Formats: sequence, structure tokens, C-alpha cells
Amino acid sequence: MTDDRQRHGTLRGEEAIIALLAPLAEGFSGAFGLKDDCALIAPEPGTELVLKTDPVAEGVHFLPGDAPQDIAWKALAVNVSDLAAKGATPLCYLLALSFPDAPTRERMSRFVDGLRAAQERFGCHLIGGDTDRRPGPLTMSVTMIGSVPQGQIVRRATAHAGDTLFVSGTIGDASLGLALLRDPGQAGTWGVSAEEESHLVARYRRPEPRLALAQALRQYASAAMDVSDGLIKDLDRLLRASGVAGRLDAGDVPLSQAARRIVARAPQRLAGLLTGGDDYEVLASIPRDKAAAFAAAAAAAGVPVSRVGEVLPGPPALAVTGPDGAPMHLPAASGWDHF
Amino acid sequence: MTDDRQRHGTLRGEEAIIALLAPLAEGFSGAFGLKDDCALIAPEPGTELVLKTDPVAEGVHFLPGDAPQDIAWKALAVNVSDLAAKGATPLCYLLALSFPDAPTRERMSRFVDGLRAAQERFGCHLIGGDTDRRPGPLTMSVTMIGSVPQGQIVRRATAHAGDTLFVSGTIGDASLGLALLRDPGQAGTWGVSAEEESHLVARYRRPEPRLALAQALRQYASAAMDVSDGLIKDLDRLLRASGVAGRLDAGDVPLSQAARRIVARAPQRLAGLLTGGDDYEVLASIPRDKAAAFAAAAAAAGVPVSRVGEVLPGPPALAVTGPDGAPMHLPAASGWDHF
Repeated sequence: MTDDRQRHGTLRGEEAIIALLAPLAEGFSGAFGLKDDCALIAPEPGTELVLKTDPVAEGVHFLPGDAPQDIAWKALAVNVSDLAAKGATPLCYLLALSFPDAPTRERMSRFVDGLRAAQERFGCHLIGGDTDRRPGPLTMSVTMIGSVPQGQIVRRATAHAGDTLFVSGTIGDASLGLALLRDPGQAGTWGVSAEEESHLVARYRRPEPRLALAQALRQYASAAMDVSDGLIKDLDRLLRASGVAGRLDAGDVPLSQAARRIVARAPQRLAGLLTGGDDYEVLASIPRDKAAAFAAAAAAAGVPVSRVGEVLPGPPALAVTGPDGAPMHLPAASGWDHF
Repeated sequence: MTDDRQRHGTLRGEEAIIALLAPLAEGFSGAFGLKDDCALIAPEPGTELVLKTDPVAEGVHFLPGDAPQDIAWKALAVNVSDLAAKGATPLCYLLALSFPDAPTRERMSRFVDGLRAAQERFGCHLIGGDTDRRPGPLTMSVTMIGSVPQGQIVRRATAHAGDTLFVSGTIGDASLGLALLRDPGQAGTWGVSAEEESHLVARYRRPEPRLALAQALRQYASAAMDVSDGLIKDLDRLLRASGVAGRLDAGDVPLSQAARRIVARAPQRLAGLLTGGDDYEVLASIPRDKAAAFAAAAAAAGVPVSRVGEVLPGPPALAVTGPDGAPMHLPAASGWDHF
């Protein structure tokens, strides 16, 4: 239908772009093959829908030289990460693409490859969206829609004094990966191996949302959220939303081998790991008497989780205890803020 | 919570912006006061959800000098227009805002006023979103979610040969309004009054989606879509999606008094009205034996509709007959395309 408007190089016409994206909609009837104006979701009885939108822009959320496959992956992953922390399972997504210049067929195909890899991993389909051209950075606005059993969404504002705070995976790797991408020479200074460097960069470029943790969160968590703007800032948000205080034991925050090596050489770097962004791990507040069961369920699901602190009676305040037992002075607002 | 980071001028911190937006979420429990990471929709039994995302950007979809209230209105209206054409009723929306610079409190407040006016008119609530700062134009990405009775969505790809084609309201006014905004001197050349000029500009700035038509579309339409990229282009899309041909009688396309005056002076301008964008009217394909009932239902709902042509057996092709009865030669791809 659109062959007459396509060339081998630059894609001509919105419909040529949509034709490349259409295979990503196969298998979801309400996507109408991307040929209608809207998408349709028929929710399963007994479920509710969980929605999140988080645009990613070149130069802000990814680097201009990043591969299209990685950009596509990350655009989906950052939204799936939010759903996972709410105990939800991804169903489908809308994608609004804004290009400063018409993309080439080759670049667009690689971008579609990244979307396909991500949606197969996360179990969702493209169901609609929009493409336009405008000045400014390449931007992808994803709206991710997931499903959760009725009444079981895990909220941010429902942590209780006495809960144990858990974090999944390791914290700070992505911020180190970004720093290495910006200044590769630091790898030598930090004493990290080539393999560790690759790992840190992959944590920045290809975050793996903790979908496997969703069921354990629904079963055990008082409250949860994903860690995307820095652990300190996101924990502060969870405590404020819940009207409670909390203590973070910085020495208990899980670090990768590479991060541990860096902190061993330069202990002052720990603060940067706790406030860096792009972790896409889960922060969960678990009633004390369920903490062991949660940890066991997480382990059974293949997700490492670590106890990192405790929720205390309000008013909202976050105390951070350093590895030496002394208070660490980190401004609560530390972490990523666009403004 | 965020007062310490606010100043009277520029808004400091994403949370200051969210605090201004939060009142727009009141009344929708699944919005969680914009204080959670995701929003929750509990669909009514017997309904399905209809989703649309369509970002609007300064300099592309609105003019740099446009008032924040108008920009906000239009950002919602263009998405509601799609839902209306599908027979759906708006429920809620997500809003991703990207600013090149931190907005002032005064400008942001006017923007919120426009959102409030629009969501009250359209019957929906803000339930979540995202704000960030990036280079490039001010951008608002709205994802609108509506509800439709199960199995009753009105699709684009289901028009049948023999159907009568209808258009709501009048066509081409917004394109004239945009032309007047770009070159106000044309009002004199065209012979339009100050009142007519205001009307045309308002059609561009404050489109009124045809929500009142949703029920009649569900009841009578084989297929429908909203007219946003020009009547010719959108009708061509409807015919191609449905695998049918069609005839548009250009002399029957409804024009406002101002547009009629302009075409009377300069008949060659008619083509521009048929291919201009931003109409936000509804194009509907109605079985011939239901055409009278549809027109009556539309009139009862307060929406003027006009018969403008007919759906014919395929293959897909669009013939446009001019007011003089002779074929008009308009390329089928005429209309707005970003690429």
C-alpha cells in the first residue's frame, strides 16, 4: 500500500514507518494491525489496568551515539520497570515517535529489532501510537499498559512503620556505566576489568525490569516503587507519600563486584551510587513478619533481594547510616530532577 | 511538601509542577493524587477501553505565541476527537510534558486552567504522566483512555460498498484560521468580517470534538474516523483500510459562511479546504438504509451532519467530483504528512 512512497534510503511518509512497526502488533486483536485510529483493550474479568507513561529523549535519557536497538529496549524497559514494582504484568503499549529528520530504513529497522526483543522479553505488544517530525531530540513516548488482579496493585503511599525495606539486584551500576560512556578513561583509574566495564555499561543501556518479582510484591509488600531517579530520592518519595520516616543502612545496599571495587578504592563514591539514577531495581516495604517469606519468594523467582533498612514512625524523614555506623549526610532531594 | 523548592517565578522541581497538576486528578481514585508511579483503571463490567496517543509540539501542532490555555485544550481535544469517532466516551488521560526551560508558575497555571476547562467539557480526569526538561519545542504527549460498550467500537476498516458518506460540522475552517494567524492581512483580501475571522481562528485553536455523536455512530455507522489530516487524505485512508472505493461530492462538503464567501471569491481555494488539516470533525460511513435515521439521531444530539458521497465497490480509489460535476484532480495523498 505504501511501496510507491518508499525509497531504499530515507523512509517517506508516516505510513512507511507504520508498515515497519505493524509486525510488532501481530497477536493483539485490539491493535487492528495499527490501521485504526485507536486501540482497543478488552480487560480480563477480575483484573484492573495499570498505566505508565515515561518518554525518553536523546541526550537526556540516552546518548546520541547509542544503538537504535538499545534505545528501543530502554524506552520499553523503563516503563515496564514501573509496572513490575506495582505487581503488574505488561499487556501492551502505545508508542509516539518524534524524529528531527526522517529516519533511514536501516536505522528504523534496527529500532524495530530492539522493540521486538524487548516486547518478547516483557510479554507485550505494540497496539498504537503516532509518528511526527519536529525539531529537537529524537523522542520516544511510551505508554505501557499492564494488568493486575483486582485490588492487588502495590502502591507507593502505603508503607507502615516497622516494615523492612528491601532492594532488588544491585544499586549504582548504571550510573557508573554512564560515567564510563562519558569518560572511558575512568575504567583504568577505577581498576575495573573490561568485563566489569561491559557489565556496567549494559546496566545503563539495557535495564532488566524486575517482572519476576511482581507476584511476590503482590503477595507480601505493603508498598513498592521502582528505583529510577536514585535510591535516596526514590526512598525519600516512598516515605513522604506514606507519611513515615525511615532508615537506610548504606553498608547493606547491594553493590556489584565492580561497584564494590570502586568504593573500596574511593569510599566517597558510595554517595554517588546511592543517588545516581537508572537503576530500575525495586524498592519494597515489607511487613517485618513477612520479610523472610518475601525474601524466599524472591529467591524462588530468581531475583536477589537485600534488606537495606527499616520504616519508622513519622513524620517523614530519611536517615542514612554509613558503612561505619555514622550518619551520612545526603540531601533527601539528591538524585535526578529535570528542573 | 514542595514549598521550600518553589519560588514565585520559575517552578523548581518536578514535584512543584506535579503539585499544580494534582487538582486535575481529584475525583478519580486510580490517579492516587498523582503521587504513585502508575495509575489504575478499574473498567466497568461490559465495557472495553479505547486508547489514543497523539503528542502536540510547539511550532508543529501549535504556534509559539499561542496561549497556554489554548495549547492545553488542543492537546486534549485532538485525542478526544479520535475517541468520539470510535463511539467512545473519555475516562481519563496521561500527560507527558517536556519543557525546553523550566516554566514560570504563571504560565503553568494558565496551562492547567486550559486542561481543567477541557477535561470538564470532555468528562475526563488527569491520572498520571511525566515531566522532563529537554531541548527542542515544548511538547505535550497525551494518552487518552475512553470507554465503549463491549463489541461496539466503530472501526476504520469496515466501510461497505453502498454506504453513504457523512461529515459532521464544517470542513476547512481551521486551515483558514491558521492561514489568518500566519498572515492576518489576508482577512481583507478574502472579504471576511472580524467576527468570521475570530470564528476561523477559534476553529484552529479550540477544536470541539464531536463527543455528542458517539452514540449515533455506535448505533448506525459501518465505519468512522475523525478528520484531522485533511478530508481527502483521511477519506482515502478509510477507503484503503476498508478495501473499497468512494466518491466525494466536493459541492456537498459542508462549509462555514466564511469559507463559502472565500470560495465564492476564489473557487480554486476549495481544494485547500478539502486537504487542510485540523478539522476534528467526524467522517462516517453509514449503510444507505440507515442514513436517514443517522442524520436524525445526529440532529437530535445537536450535531449537524452532511451527506458528502458514497462508498463504491473496490479496489480502493477515491474520485472527487467538483461543484460543477467535473472530476477534481486532487492527489489522494494530499493532506498533512510529517515526512
